[in-house]
Amino acid sequence: MNGPELAVHHPLSPLDPHEISKCAHLISTALPKNAELQFKTIMLAEPPKQILVPYLEKEHKGLPRQVIDRRAFATYYIRNTDRFHEAIVNLTSGHVERNVRLDPHIHGNLDAEEVLLVEKIVLEDESVKAEIAKLNLPAGTVVCADPWPYGSDGVNDSARMYQVLMYMRDPANPNEPDSNHYAFPLSISPVVDCVCYSVIHIDIMPTGRDFTSTPVTPYKPVPANEYLPRYQDGLRQDLKPLRVTQPEGASFTISQTDGAGHTLNWQKWWFRVGYNQREGMVLYDVRYSGRPLFYRVSLSDMNIPYADPRPPFHRKAVFDLGDAGAGAMANNLKLGCDCLGHIQYLSAFIPDSAGKPQLLENCVCVHEQDAGIGWKHTNYRTGKAAVTRSRELVLQSIITVSNYEYILAFIFNQAGEMTYEVRATGILSTQPISRDLDKSGVPFGTVVHPGVLAVHHQHIFSLRVDPMIDGHSNRLVYEEALPLPPDPNTNPFGNGYVSSKTIVAKSCGLDLDPDTNRVFKIENTNSLNPINNKNVAYKIQLPPFQKILSHPSSWNFKRSEFSDHNIYVTTHRDNELFAGGWYTPQSRGGTGVRSWAAREDDLTAPEADIVIWAQFGINHIPRIEDFPVMPCETLRVSFKPVNFFDKNPALDVPPSEQKFNQSTLVGGQGHHVQGSVVADQNCDCCFGQGRVHRL
Amino acid sequence: MNGPELAVHHPLSPLDPHEISKCAHLISTALPKNAELQFKTIMLAEPPKQILVPYLEKEHKGLPRQVIDRRAFATYYIRNTDRFHEAIVNLTSGHVERNVRLDPHIHGNLDAEEVLLVEKIVLEDESVKAEIAKLNLPAGTVVCADPWPYGSDGVNDSARMYQVLMYMRDPANPNEPDSNHYAFPLSISPVVDCVCYSVIHIDIMPTGRDFTSTPVTPYKPVPANEYLPRYQDGLRQDLKPLRVTQPEGASFTISQTDGAGHTLNWQKWWFRVGYNQREGMVLYDVRYSGRPLFYRVSLSDMNIPYADPRPPFHRKAVFDLGDAGAGAMANNLKLGCDCLGHIQYLSAFIPDSAGKPQLLENCVCVHEQDAGIGWKHTNYRTGKAAVTRSRELVLQSIITVSNYEYILAFIFNQAGEMTYEVRATGILSTQPISRDLDKSGVPFGTVVHPGVLAVHHQHIFSLRVDPMIDGHSNRLVYEEALPLPPDPNTNPFGNGYVSSKTIVAKSCGLDLDPDTNRVFKIENTNSLNPINNKNVAYKIQLPPFQKILSHPSSWNFKRSEFSDHNIYVTTHRDNELFAGGWYTPQSRGGTGVRSWAAREDDLTAPEADIVIWAQFGINHIPRIEDFPVMPCETLRVSFKPVNFFDKNPALDVPPSEQKFNQSTLVGGQGHHVQGSVVADQNCDCCFGQGRVHRL
Repeated sequence: MNGPELAVHHPLSPLDPHEISKCAHLISTALPKNAELQFKTIMLAEPPKQILVPYLEKEHKGLPRQVIDRRAFATYYIRNTDRFHEAIVNLTSGHVERNVRLDPHIHGNLDAEEVLLVEKIVLEDESVKAEIAKLNLPAGTVVCADPWPYGSDGVNDSARMYQVLMYMRDPANPNEPDSNHYAFPLSISPVVDCVCYSVIHIDIMPTGRDFTSTPVTPYKPVPANEYLPRYQDGLRQDLKPLRVTQPEGASFTISQTDGAGHTLNWQKWWFRVGYNQREGMVLYDVRYSGRPLFYRVSLSDMNIPYADPRPPFHRKAVFDLGDAGAGAMANNLKLGCDCLGHIQYLSAFIPDSAGKPQLLENCVCVHEQDAGIGWKHTNYRTGKAAVTRSRELVLQSIITVSNYEYILAFIFNQAGEMTYEVRATGILSTQPISRDLDKSGVPFGTVVHPGVLAVHHQHIFSLRVDPMIDGHSNRLVYEEALPLPPDPNTNPFGNGYVSSKTIVAKSCGLDLDPDTNRVFKIENTNSLNPINNKNVAYKIQLPPFQKILSHPSSWNFKRSEFSDHNIYVTTHRDNELFAGGWYTPQSRGGTGVRSWAAREDDLTAPEADIVIWAQFGINHIPRIEDFPVMPCETLRVSFKPVNFFDKNPALDVPPSEQKFNQSTLVGGQGHHVQGSVVADQNCDCCFGQGRVHRL
Repeated sequence: MNGPELAVHHPLSPLDPHEISKCAHLISTALPKNAELQFKTIMLAEPPKQILVPYLEKEHKGLPRQVIDRRAFATYYIRNTDRFHEAIVNLTSGHVERNVRLDPHIHGNLDAEEVLLVEKIVLEDESVKAEIAKLNLPAGTVVCADPWPYGSDGVNDSARMYQVLMYMRDPANPNEPDSNHYAFPLSISPVVDCVCYSVIHIDIMPTGRDFTSTPVTPYKPVPANEYLPRYQDGLRQDLKPLRVTQPEGASFTISQTDGAGHTLNWQKWWFRVGYNQREGMVLYDVRYSGRPLFYRVSLSDMNIPYADPRPPFHRKAVFDLGDAGAGAMANNLKLGCDCLGHIQYLSAFIPDSAGKPQLLENCVCVHEQDAGIGWKHTNYRTGKAAVTRSRELVLQSIITVSNYEYILAFIFNQAGEMTYEVRATGILSTQPISRDLDKSGVPFGTVVHPGVLAVHHQHIFSLRVDPMIDGHSNRLVYEEALPLPPDPNTNPFGNGYVSSKTIVAKSCGLDLDPDTNRVFKIENTNSLNPINNKNVAYKIQLPPFQKILSHPSSWNFKRSEFSDHNIYVTTHRDNELFAGGWYTPQSRGGTGVRSWAAREDDLTAPEADIVIWAQFGINHIPRIEDFPVMPCETLRVSFKPVNFFDKNPALDVPPSEQKFNQSTLVGGQGHHVQGSVVADQNCDCCFGQGRVHRL
């Protein structure tokens, strides 16, 4: 390739724009001249762990390191064909090292360009227009088409297709481009083929109580249900500003050493921030006080199966990462809107379908937040309190997948804890329901607006954690609390209970059990706590959830390989990154974490290298309060040290004191209670930093 | 009583200082002159619900109300006897309406005066001194004694007693009054009788692996483990200030209409804040947009049974509210230390043992906090986003119960949600363990410091909720998600599932089931959602926990009447306020929510009035990281509207915009990425309030 010389990047830096271009160029040149390519993915092909682990150890020791060739992973179609390819390109040597056509039933992800193209195709299709005409819509009404991944049901579903959900803007206000069209779902659902890019079929969806689909009939007006502020019947006038300031700047430092990669340093944490179009944020080489914790952490996939058993709704089951991409769908975050406080933004690059790099501006925001009291103790004899506040570091992305939004965040604190947080918001996926059923409803959904049904669905997330707790010799264990049996000698009063540890010996899927207080921990097999001799560990604090409700014989179940257990544990293999497999659109199962765990690999062998897949989720039984846009529903998974340190690691956080916090009293003065005025706010009873001295 | 005329207070206002004095005075005068009284409780006796409900309705309608007599509930001992009394005093008429001696096995709560007295008694006792002498401590070593509620085991445990846990300050630094003595536990445990106030017995505790207690032997030095900042090996130097300001003041208004009571108004919420020595904060008459939601909400009790089966540890099982009192143990909150932002404090009064009112200064803080994004949707076609932030209102108390701290908070948001949050922090209760066992440990505890064992224990909380969801005709239901069986006609592809509702017909205890996504809801039996006809409801979002591990035959289990189910539902009776019964010290069970539920009252009768008891907790298997003071562990129970409103109630929250938030960029400028600079931060793609206009 002619062009600027490539810089030598860190092996974990995401592809920079030149690398994306070079990858696309090298693949194009390797193919016949007339082949027009439609790129689906171009992202960093990470070096094998076997090479990278010693590299990173040398890096941390400041030793000289070998150069590791930069490689890109790419997928693409020969445009307007079903020929789907996967390639590995060595960007350093300029060679396409692997370039294979995949099996015809393996399909690439959707992308923004294609989604907009499919909408256009549908809206211009004569047969679709004929169905719309039956609605007898007011002149000027604007119809919208949201293309969805087709799903799998084993019925003529080999070709790559889109199932298109149709809506319209409020016919009474058709010029509002941001009208909430989800309040006006139509029963017309075209299917678009992705080779000829044309409508091959139109489903008319059932809107009654049974499987029958009624022919499209003229539209009867219903009110709109807009989420835009300007359509509300007045906004709250009594909310006063609340501002977060950091007059001395942020406590974190982000270094952009090379390329598109960053390292982040904050309160004893150090890690590398990567980004790709599929997973969005990926954290590498996470360390605390220099001690290794996580080799690689990312959201691996998410599955959303819907509850309506009636065709074509039965195929509504999407993988928001595998089908669409958390990285590709990230919002451009705005200081004015999405973030409060003192913020730093990161950006990234993904390819367009021609292989040209596109800037994803401000796709990650980084900031600190106050999380209330960190720890406190008051000596009741002296009345003196020692108290700290908990400061957190947040790395956040917000993704829009058609109607829904997810706010995805890694959160670190000063007590050595890492949390992954998901907030679900956005708009429910809706479908039409007969107005006759507004009051009686159907058992698999909730009427959220006249004539509008929001079907029950599950959000099942899989967080992939490749641990290195104090090094790479890690195992998975779980601890349970078990009552001692009543016994005159060992438990005479029946109160006794003990904790019991089980070592997980083979790769498998495992479940939480609140009734035994089952807690999963990642332990180092060699490293022992110097005080109590226990294996140093991090526990996984994971909320239980209802596993996938689709029947084990269903395609939904087979495809969603991570949806049936709270925890999967596998042995590490470099190419096993995504819990639902590499290619989820219209997938068939058999590739993903359930299949990998089924190898029953020995996890107790000295050289065993484990990967943990932590699942969590919501069974979303919609409330009317979730429409027209839902208040955030929050899920958190935390990783907390257990006998990893030798005491509370946040003990050296400076005490919380007024000189630092500069809080204010409402009304600017003490609060009066009958017969008394609260004394001044001098803090004689706390241990402020001002009075701290080393003995 | 001679003194100032009593003001006419709202029936739900806590007792003011004059009322506390008047109550004590009236009881004293009703008794023989030479009887010296030791008051344990003086608090508001709330009017019967039958009278109060119509009163509150008239209040909200602005109609004239009858005067309701003010009454106090009091308990007291004839000092230096076991004669324990319960009284109701009519403060309006000046009559003692009820004054009965309770059964001898019923005991009053501990109080701060008595706890300090018992410590003094123990430290001056010659037999205790003789045991301490065996430790051969360095001259000047300071020994401390923490009196604990004695507990129940049915073995000579009828008299009221304290079990005293003994510690010492670091012998190498004995002049530090805030030394962490929990790092130096002693095996000497005196028992103090509360009639003669003397040591009646000394337990020498087992420190080995079995039930044998070893005689006290000379102390061998171990290092200290202090939590005070000044003893740390340097504090973090790189944490920059983070400040929260509200330049235009708070968005809430607190009115102190009369006495010690307050009403609070914020973002469509309105409620009355009460306070008593047992429960601390009590919220009454909670409404949103004027619609009734909760008649009364408070933390009802908390039980902490420990796992060590060996006497005398088997009796370690405390009720922090019933035995000690969340109100009485509240910290004096400091603007400089405990709270960040723009804060208002409330104070309260409790009696001392002579019946004199004592000011509990700043025992509640009230402030707003930012809780991240409230809701967001981005239109992927236009790229335009609508986004709000979630503002929360927090009412917080922090209580110190000997070694432990609990941060207790009611949190309200703009989406009609109320959350009760508990953060557990403070210092683990410790006991000595033989240094020989530092490395091998025992299965019922964790060695957290050389020679120091922190035993496993459960924290089980019971939140009492007397609901009035859209009025008083409420019922408890639970909803589950059930898979449809595969069937060619009704579920041909196996994905279908439905929600199923069960009405709870009789008072009982019930459990969560994550595997069926069981969600408890409080429904109004008459009020239906205008859009979808569903009963308006609030759901209870409750984390599962391991129920009490003590055997059902044990005293621990029998006494802890709320510890064995996630939910209890009972019919309302005015005197059933505390889940473990009114008198928990050395209690025997048989009074509390399990017993009340066992009535199997009909909950479906039209006049049925339900009360919900929501349990949650932690099985605390100590980590070494929880010592010498533990990082907060957080639990949350939320009440969220389900088909109560007709759309997202936070839809009218003003959009999040820079003019209001005034966020700042790290470095004060855009962040550079290779080949690109992030554009300016003008927010063209969001719907800011500045551009909002009504159509």
